[in-house]
Amino acid sequence: MTTTSRAQAVVAFGGGHGLHASLSALRLLVDDLTVDDLTAVVTVADNGGSSGRLRSEFGVLPPGDLRMALAALCGADDWGDTWTRLLQHRFAGEGEMRGHVVGNLLIVGLWELLGDPVEALDWVARLLGAKGRVLPMALTPMDIRAEVRGLVAGDPDALTTVRGQVEVATTEGVITTLDLEPPDPEVSPLVLDKVIEADWAFIGPGSWFSSVIPHLRVPQLREAMVASQARLVVVLNLEEQAGETGGFAPADHLAVLFEHAPHLRVHTVLADRANLTDEQHDELLALVEASGTRLVLDDVARDDGSPRHDPVKLAAAYARLIAAG
Amino acid sequence: MTTTSRAQAVVAFGGGHGLHASLSALRLLVDDLTVDDLTAVVTVADNGGSSGRLRSEFGVLPPGDLRMALAALCGADDWGDTWTRLLQHRFAGEGEMRGHVVGNLLIVGLWELLGDPVEALDWVARLLGAKGRVLPMALTPMDIRAEVRGLVAGDPDALTTVRGQVEVATTEGVITTLDLEPPDPEVSPLVLDKVIEADWAFIGPGSWFSSVIPHLRVPQLREAMVASQARLVVVLNLEEQAGETGGFAPADHLAVLFEHAPHLRVHTVLADRANLTDEQHDELLALVEASGTRLVLDDVARDDGSPRHDPVKLAAAYARLIAAG
Repeated sequence: MTTTSRAQAVVAFGGGHGLHASLSALRLLVDDLTVDDLTAVVTVADNGGSSGRLRSEFGVLPPGDLRMALAALCGADDWGDTWTRLLQHRFAGEGEMRGHVVGNLLIVGLWELLGDPVEALDWVARLLGAKGRVLPMALTPMDIRAEVRGLVAGDPDALTTVRGQVEVATTEGVITTLDLEPPDPEVSPLVLDKVIEADWAFIGPGSWFSSVIPHLRVPQLREAMVASQARLVVVLNLEEQAGETGGFAPADHLAVLFEHAPHLRVHTVLADRANLTDEQHDELLALVEASGTRLVLDDVARDDGSPRHDPVKLAAAYARLIAAG
Repeated sequence: MTTTSRAQAVVAFGGGHGLHASLSALRLLVDDLTVDDLTAVVTVADNGGSSGRLRSEFGVLPPGDLRMALAALCGADDWGDTWTRLLQHRFAGEGEMRGHVVGNLLIVGLWELLGDPVEALDWVARLLGAKGRVLPMALTPMDIRAEVRGLVAGDPDALTTVRGQVEVATTEGVITTLDLEPPDPEVSPLVLDKVIEADWAFIGPGSWFSSVIPHLRVPQLREAMVASQARLVVVLNLEEQAGETGGFAPADHLAVLFEHAPHLRVHTVLADRANLTDEQHDELLALVEASGTRLVLDDVARDDGSPRHDPVKLAAAYARLIAAG
């Protein structure tokens, strides 16, 4: 039996390598016509590396996560491949350019030239022959602020405020809450439209506190996510991440997500079957059922044993979710 | 009467703003099908500004003159225009990127990525929808070395060696000879083929010692220019240039060109009619006739009084030369 169904509008939230994996999967669904409208909504709170230097020098959005999302969506031909490799090329050596990434410089140049951050990203997408659109989660550079427990010697329950994506991602304490500065940044109307109109939305995988949760702390964006009829899929990480989620079980990841956006309706929680112990599975299932959502286990991890999602497997899992509706 | 003649293969030698003007003219002749094969052969001896910093940091060819030549050849549509403006965008501000030009960073990134300087420039040309090819005059970063008279107080005939394009361009003395280090750099076989196969070759206008003469001091390139059947046109500057040609009359420009390439056969010397005094004209004509070439006067200067060539007028002048054969 074949069914002919309408192609889907999809939004993916995240940043960094996690979003890159999710977008690499989703572009395969654009290629096979399952998805015809793909939008990445990308965190803009990075303060480290090449992005941090450029943000500090020019007062612009940190371009690195946006660049990486664009690279994930690039065209598969020689043209798309070459410009993407250039976009991702990092200067080595010992001089002033060391560590800068060509695509970051290109994006910042376009921002200066065109003034409009969204228009500039669309130009890069056209250059790459990208299979979707990449938008920033806010139009203002953001800073992450976390309340962290366990950093005060002799007082394990004391809370310490940690500021900055790099600092939060590498904290040795336990993050309890995460907020953004400024607390209510402007969001592009395009982002809000895409979120409202989406059929499906995927959040995660990725650095949980520094790339995933921030979207839920942007009020305009969170409200659009809550109002949207899109079926929201939370894609869990394959393991804890030293620093920001050290010691976190899969259920803990889900719990902090719920805590940071209580009104969010989650359609599906997607986890890798082989990366859950029985205990983790039971704990996760209990939380999922208590939250009125559902747990889908699938095979989405790479075969090489690394804690990364395999884009082809992830695409197949996404396609199964979409087909089941 | 209409004549149907074969479209022409053209090579243009130079660097900087002078080559940009000549290429801006020649691309108009590509548009009207007078020229069907256009190649710029560009000086690679710059040691100042963004190019000098990148050359010093990465040991690569200085990209700036190559970038500017590519910009001159860009496609006239929105696509070519936007990427060209980005290529030419210079970072302002006070930080580490200050003064760097986006296109220079993009070209150096492609050089690092692809290894082959010519292939990388071809990729940029494809990005811009360029109307021709841009090649470096040599595959090795070069340094200019000039013997300069008049820098020693009390000994006006003493010669001083001045090294570096910036230093030569701004010398307060009189340049007598110009050489390159290394003296016999490798030249891309593509450059030699294009020079040998050209129907027409244009050298100048431009900074005479730092952008025009250097081509004649690359032995492989000079030999190809001498061996080529291309009709060589010397396009004279509209006035002397403070520093490197301070006090030079038009005939002096031509004389130093002959001195640096004695075996070169020049088909035409092109000068702007309105920018010659009677005395300059007579002196220039005498040298031209003594050298077995010919002088063509035309209207090629901008109407705004600036000492720059007007690309549209220059294109018309080039077209008249080509039509006359």
